[in-house]
Amino acid sequence: MYIRYNYNNQAHYGFLEDGVIKRLNGTLFNHTGLSDESLELSSVKLLPPCQPTKVICVGLNYRDHAEEMNETLPEAPLLFLKPPTTVIAHHDAIVAPEGTGRLDYEAELAIVIGVEAKNVSVTESADYIFGFTCANDFTARDIQLSDKQWTRGKSFDTFCPLGPGIVKTINQNDASIELTVNGEIRQQSNINKFIFGPNEIVSYISRHMTLLPGDVILTGTPHGVGPVNSGDVMSVTIDGVGTLTNTLKVQ
Amino acid sequence: MYIRYNYNNQAHYGFLEDGVIKRLNGTLFNHTGLSDESLELSSVKLLPPCQPTKVICVGLNYRDHAEEMNETLPEAPLLFLKPPTTVIAHHDAIVAPEGTGRLDYEAELAIVIGVEAKNVSVTESADYIFGFTCANDFTARDIQLSDKQWTRGKSFDTFCPLGPGIVKTINQNDASIELTVNGEIRQQSNINKFIFGPNEIVSYISRHMTLLPGDVILTGTPHGVGPVNSGDVMSVTIDGVGTLTNTLKVQ
Repeated sequence: MYIRYNYNNQAHYGFLEDGVIKRLNGTLFNHTGLSDESLELSSVKLLPPCQPTKVICVGLNYRDHAEEMNETLPEAPLLFLKPPTTVIAHHDAIVAPEGTGRLDYEAELAIVIGVEAKNVSVTESADYIFGFTCANDFTARDIQLSDKQWTRGKSFDTFCPLGPGIVKTINQNDASIELTVNGEIRQQSNINKFIFGPNEIVSYISRHMTLLPGDVILTGTPHGVGPVNSGDVMSVTIDGVGTLTNTLKVQ
Repeated sequence: MYIRYNYNNQAHYGFLEDGVIKRLNGTLFNHTGLSDESLELSSVKLLPPCQPTKVICVGLNYRDHAEEMNETLPEAPLLFLKPPTTVIAHHDAIVAPEGTGRLDYEAELAIVIGVEAKNVSVTESADYIFGFTCANDFTARDIQLSDKQWTRGKSFDTFCPLGPGIVKTINQNDASIELTVNGEIRQQSNINKFIFGPNEIVSYISRHMTLLPGDVILTGTPHGVGPVNSGDVMSVTIDGVGTLTNTLKVQ
């Protein structure tokens, strides 16, 4: 998988295979291949796998979650935004201020854009997707519901863990998505329950705003959302992508 | 005022006075002063005056607009986001796709952040503000209201004109804000009708997300919002800041 990491106080993109990292000569979107150098994964600090100029989220995109929330199935993807300052890496702490009320995990498949996309058709969309990673659309639920606009409850620094890395393809017809809290399963579904698939989502969003390389789209969360407390460890696992682990710290 | 502009296919920051531009050696936030070169304003293409990583908006922040919408005065600023791809310059066209329904202007004072701000108090806030500019929080009203989440109706490319430039200070106790359509006044108010002033807004947002240099905050629109049609010319004028003019093109 493609990763971004810090080594000797410098950020690099690389390709990770069997615990060994080869550095990319350049960025994800503009490079001249892999260097010969290799590094052990344990010797680097993982960074978020890309640097989005925007994080666009789709609400209510699993049939099972829409049923759980007693919502009718949406006719089009419902969009909202998280600021780029929410993005953190695998193993970084999610930090919430004291007094923010109920704090919820939301396991999601994230799409990473590879090529500038504007008014792209559903059939062309795949050409604009660089790959996929895991995300946790962490949410201060009381604030989300009291504001009605979802922005504030989802915009605290650290509320968008992404990673650990990016894979180029997934099986869109069958890939389980699961979230555990302290090892216990809380969300368990399959992306084949999507109301809108990745290609439809990219096409739809690109007809509203230009997507840039590195931009990230969170594709919605399945049923089973719920609260966590300071110290709880959350892991999002998606078949063929990997596991993203983060601990909540309330302070 | 501080401006950003294109000259000989290169983007620069500069300072504009009496129709003459002096180039800044560096960026707004990190420079070594003004160059000796001077350019006529007419010889350059104006760009948006800064490059925000996020555009944060405050809803319902004028007493007169809250009354017009029959809303009770909010107890805290109501926040939402526009993606950076919405930002355009003075005289750039606002382009809306056919079939987006009612399209509304919204004149707003914009705050430009100068220094990274996290958990800043109200009294400290002024130190984190670089300056002020004019904005038009352009809105596809039917989409905004049908989605309930305001994001999609406010996120089309070109829906956030900013400019023409940035002034360091304004009279926060008395500055008129006005919007004309084809020369006719449609919005006319004063920023002394703010429910939350710039310092309170910066402090409040900084307790939710880290503000970065160049980030922009739109401070809400006064009464008088309304629709425009393709070809209409909108001008936002704020006392001591300047006039921001953009034409709507529906295509």
